Amino acid sequence: MSSNFIRLLLGNPLPSSAEAHHRLSKVKALAVFAADALSSVAYAPEEILLALALGGAAALQLSFPIAVVITALLVIVAVSYYQTIHGYPSGGGAYIVAHDNLGAKPGLVAAAALLVDYVMVVAVSATAGAAAITSAFPSLYPYRVYLVLLTIALITWANLRGVKESGTLFAIPIYGFIAIFYALILVGLFQALSGTLDTTPFPDAQALEVGAHPLMVFVVLRAFASGTTALTGIEAISNGIPAFQKPEARNAGKTLIAMATLLATMFLGIVFLVSALGIVPLEQQTVISQVGRRIFGTGPLYLILQVATAFILILAANTSFADFPRLAAILARDRYLPRQLASIGDRLVFSTGIVALALLASALAVIFRGETHRLIPLYAVGVFLSFTLSQAGMVRHWRNARNAGWKWKTAVNGLGALATGIVLVIIAANKFLQGAWVIVLVIPIIVWMFSGVKRHYLAVADQLSLQDMRPKKWTGLASKKRHKVVVPISGVHRGTLEALRFARSLSKDVTAVVVDVEPAMTERVQIYWETWGQDIPLVVLESPFRSTIGPLLGYLDEVDRREPSRGPAVVVLPEFIPAKWWHTLLHNQTARLIKRTLIYSRGINETDRVVIDVPYHLHR
Amino acid sequence: MSSNFIRLLLGNPLPSSAEAHHRLSKVKALAVFAADALSSVAYAPEEILLALALGGAAALQLSFPIAVVITALLVIVAVSYYQTIHGYPSGGGAYIVAHDNLGAKPGLVAAAALLVDYVMVVAVSATAGAAAITSAFPSLYPYRVYLVLLTIALITWANLRGVKESGTLFAIPIYGFIAIFYALILVGLFQALSGTLDTTPFPDAQALEVGAHPLMVFVVLRAFASGTTALTGIEAISNGIPAFQKPEARNAGKTLIAMATLLATMFLGIVFLVSALGIVPLEQQTVISQVGRRIFGTGPLYLILQVATAFILILAANTSFADFPRLAAILARDRYLPRQLASIGDRLVFSTGIVALALLASALAVIFRGETHRLIPLYAVGVFLSFTLSQAGMVRHWRNARNAGWKWKTAVNGLGALATGIVLVIIAANKFLQGAWVIVLVIPIIVWMFSGVKRHYLAVADQLSLQDMRPKKWTGLASKKRHKVVVPISGVHRGTLEALRFARSLSKDVTAVVVDVEPAMTERVQIYWETWGQDIPLVVLESPFRSTIGPLLGYLDEVDRREPSRGPAVVVLPEFIPAKWWHTLLHNQTARLIKRTLIYSRGINETDRVVIDVPYHLHR
Repeated sequence: MSSNFIRLLLGNPLPSSAEAHHRLSKVKALAVFAADALSSVAYAPEEILLALALGGAAALQLSFPIAVVITALLVIVAVSYYQTIHGYPSGGGAYIVAHDNLGAKPGLVAAAALLVDYVMVVAVSATAGAAAITSAFPSLYPYRVYLVLLTIALITWANLRGVKESGTLFAIPIYGFIAIFYALILVGLFQALSGTLDTTPFPDAQALEVGAHPLMVFVVLRAFASGTTALTGIEAISNGIPAFQKPEARNAGKTLIAMATLLATMFLGIVFLVSALGIVPLEQQTVISQVGRRIFGTGPLYLILQVATAFILILAANTSFADFPRLAAILARDRYLPRQLASIGDRLVFSTGIVALALLASALAVIFRGETHRLIPLYAVGVFLSFTLSQAGMVRHWRNARNAGWKWKTAVNGLGALATGIVLVIIAANKFLQGAWVIVLVIPIIVWMFSGVKRHYLAVADQLSLQDMRPKKWTGLASKKRHKVVVPISGVHRGTLEALRFARSLSKDVTAVVVDVEPAMTERVQIYWETWGQDIPLVVLESPFRSTIGPLLGYLDEVDRREPSRGPAVVVLPEFIPAKWWHTLLHNQTARLIKRTLIYSRGINETDRVVIDVPYHLHR
Repeated sequence: MSSNFIRLLLGNPLPSSAEAHHRLSKVKALAVFAADALSSVAYAPEEILLALALGGAAALQLSFPIAVVITALLVIVAVSYYQTIHGYPSGGGAYIVAHDNLGAKPGLVAAAALLVDYVMVVAVSATAGAAAITSAFPSLYPYRVYLVLLTIALITWANLRGVKESGTLFAIPIYGFIAIFYALILVGLFQALSGTLDTTPFPDAQALEVGAHPLMVFVVLRAFASGTTALTGIEAISNGIPAFQKPEARNAGKTLIAMATLLATMFLGIVFLVSALGIVPLEQQTVISQVGRRIFGTGPLYLILQVATAFILILAANTSFADFPRLAAILARDRYLPRQLASIGDRLVFSTGIVALALLASALAVIFRGETHRLIPLYAVGVFLSFTLSQAGMVRHWRNARNAGWKWKTAVNGLGALATGIVLVIIAANKFLQGAWVIVLVIPIIVWMFSGVKRHYLAVADQLSLQDMRPKKWTGLASKKRHKVVVPISGVHRGTLEALRFARSLSKDVTAVVVDVEPAMTERVQIYWETWGQDIPLVVLESPFRSTIGPLLGYLDEVDRREPSRGPAVVVLPEFIPAKWWHTLLHNQTARLIKRTLIYSRGINETDRVVIDVPYHLHR
């Protein structure tokens, strides 16, 4: 691994003391955490229209009332999370809140749901990015999977460089998206008010009777369930509080309000325009593109809108890259995931988590090829599962705390839990056959994995524990013959002599051992031994099946059995270190293999075998 | 690696003493070594006809005279090799003969040519096998590359089980091929003599004047060059003498005569029939198939002929599997290839060479996809290059030996060298643009690699050599404070205590070191240390960049610099060994990483650092 190359790619390592300096300002935090949430205004209206279209063209005019209900839900969830941020100022993702207040299992369910969602978001976003490129250059279509992987690699690279740098990198496209989207809505509203909007009223609009037709209830429910994808990503900030500048919770709270306001207005605005314009979902063109064309025409503004939308879809992945590693680190700290995920890398980010997310999302992208858009309806399941658990946890939290205004706070979070819980049931029921069953299957498996990992760590801690033990005096210095030392050799040369010299510095009881794999070689060792072995005895081990390790293990057991009281023999291994890494291909890896086998094998009476490695460096 | 599974697949390991017992009888040796040579009668006549067809239909009748010349060449080469076998009774492949008599470089050129040929033969044979399967089951055509790899895997498996078993396995198809081919020729000859042969004379046969047309010379030369592929594989036996039962050389000689007789008669017979029947090369049907249909009809005998031909083409690969590993082992013994290739595996075969051949041939098959038949014309280049070098070497050999009959023997091998040398020039000139230039490029690269490997081994031997050194008394037992011992720890637990105890058994000068990556963890270590550290000092190393290894290396250098006379500090590493292999995924591999880094890094004054591994086994 050339560390210079890594430095060039990722920048110099940052000292831990720079951590506070590398926190996010509110402006950059919005760029990092809002991409996922805001990107949903690009697809949620389309999802609503597609669901309504099942009820006939007339049903389409229900989109705006549905959007209003979803926005109300959004406000409830945002207020609930605002409270959560202040209740858990050191980071209160759904996992922590549910784990603290409802117990380990609900916490793990929330965590599993979120992790799965983050992976899906990255796969879908990268696919959207690749689709934008292949629309422009159709000849690249056969290589789209590689483009997806390339997109993931680029986002991974930006995140490995550091969270602040990725905030800087992505601020322009995200604020650009917000600006052009607001321009679209304002121009559209102006046109609507001035009566210059090109509206095409739906046919038979008056004839529709909601509720009269039993099927229509399901259509509306499904449209609502589909539209709730607009709320995905709203929890991002509550997970990421530690990334904010001080005072973290206050800054995070303000950023959340800003984000929710942006999201609510953009979502309501675009659905209003869709409704006013009488837009119908088309196969060949997105809803956003249709609105853009009607209002901006096909000029440069329309083009900017399209490019900005493509960008925000790609950058939604970046939110996951901020949140997944952080949640994984929290889980690892609690011993539910491998501890490597909890260590902070050179650039003050959770590098292992970032790489893990990239690998999982890449795998998903490869498995689904170009079809990851089918995952979009599934986002909402995991999101609302974690919403509900998190809000329910907060209810318990306030009731236990009973600090100032606890009743009011309980009521807010209670409303949030109730609302999101009902929505969760609606979504799960509506999407079950469309793939939500996979989520229902995968989450328990992940939770079971979490528990297994935890059990393992507890078992290890238990086995290593010093409880019930008392400090014992060190056995003291080796008496002259204390350690039995065995030195396996395959030839007599400088490396071997070095090892023998070290062995003799430990004990007088040193035995050299040669396994007779090749008689000619063994004979040469014996001849050399007469000159170089001096007082160290040389034992030749038979090896009828030409294995080195078998006879050696047998011999060590035999030595140990002879004098069990003195403990297992210590093995000193000469190992010569080639000057160039590829030289290792030219040498038997016997020394390394013996070392691993000895360390992993156990002697008689289940004793552990100490192995001493005496390297001898070659310089060419 | 589950060794039980390997046992089931390959059989139990064989003791070295069973070696003589696992030699080949003449009958089995013919099955192992003749497949490559005999298979050429299936494609050499076709190659001749294809080349002659360039000169017009009339040129086709020259096939029999050309075959007679090639057979004469075959006799010369066979007699030459018979002499080589007796001159080099312990195995006289082209490499050994050329290396011994002409020098290292010519030997390596011959070796490179042969190794490349062996790889090509395997790739081509396996492709032929897959083609036979896809002809029968066209739906498998899209998977033909996998079929090629499967064929290679099957032959590899048979050879890893052992040379004797592969001889037994392959004897039936090979002797079956010989029998059906003789039946074809004898029935054909009988029909020709009794006048019942359905001969169709060529048009304008009388009008042809050889030599009158300048182009015709080239057509004849190209046909001759193509036909010489009939001689490929004839050298196999001289490489494989050690695989024969005693007396090896005599048995090998007799087998060579048998093989050459079979090859000559089958080749002449089939070309005679081709000529007599007026066969013209067709795209849709092989020449052998055409002859078979005319003589056997389309009944069961024809079917047997086709199946046997398919089999022998596949089994030609087996000859390479007998010869490549043996030649690679000889080269490895002489230090021109990695020494792993020289060690004999569990089943008394050169397993590494077998696997290497399988991998190289598989790579070639994947690169060329279904197109490996284009390699057939290239065989002859490598084969005749090695023929010429080997014969030339034998000339030198006899002239140096000057034993009984040396003049006669020199003359025979001299004629062989001259004939094969001329043929080599003809082939190279004719095939240069068809791909022979690749061979001309690849052989020098391989020879350069051989030399690089040799240079490396010589450099290593030189650096390890004890020459100019005299035995020095062992420094004797460690004085009380001799070794400075450093124990890096990340926590205080049973594993750590085990390591500290061992460290104290070596020296009183033990220091525990903790790298401060996580302040909370470091604090815990310090608190525990008050109880458990006793008289061992604990040093905390700052780590501003959160790296464990950097500060540790710095500290070790500092310790060494303080008292350079006492030599480098010894590092004792606690390493806990998980009960299940997959548990390793749940732990930082820091211990292993530190170990490798310490062994590969060097202290001040270029000293080597001894590392002591104290394992602590977990049992769940």
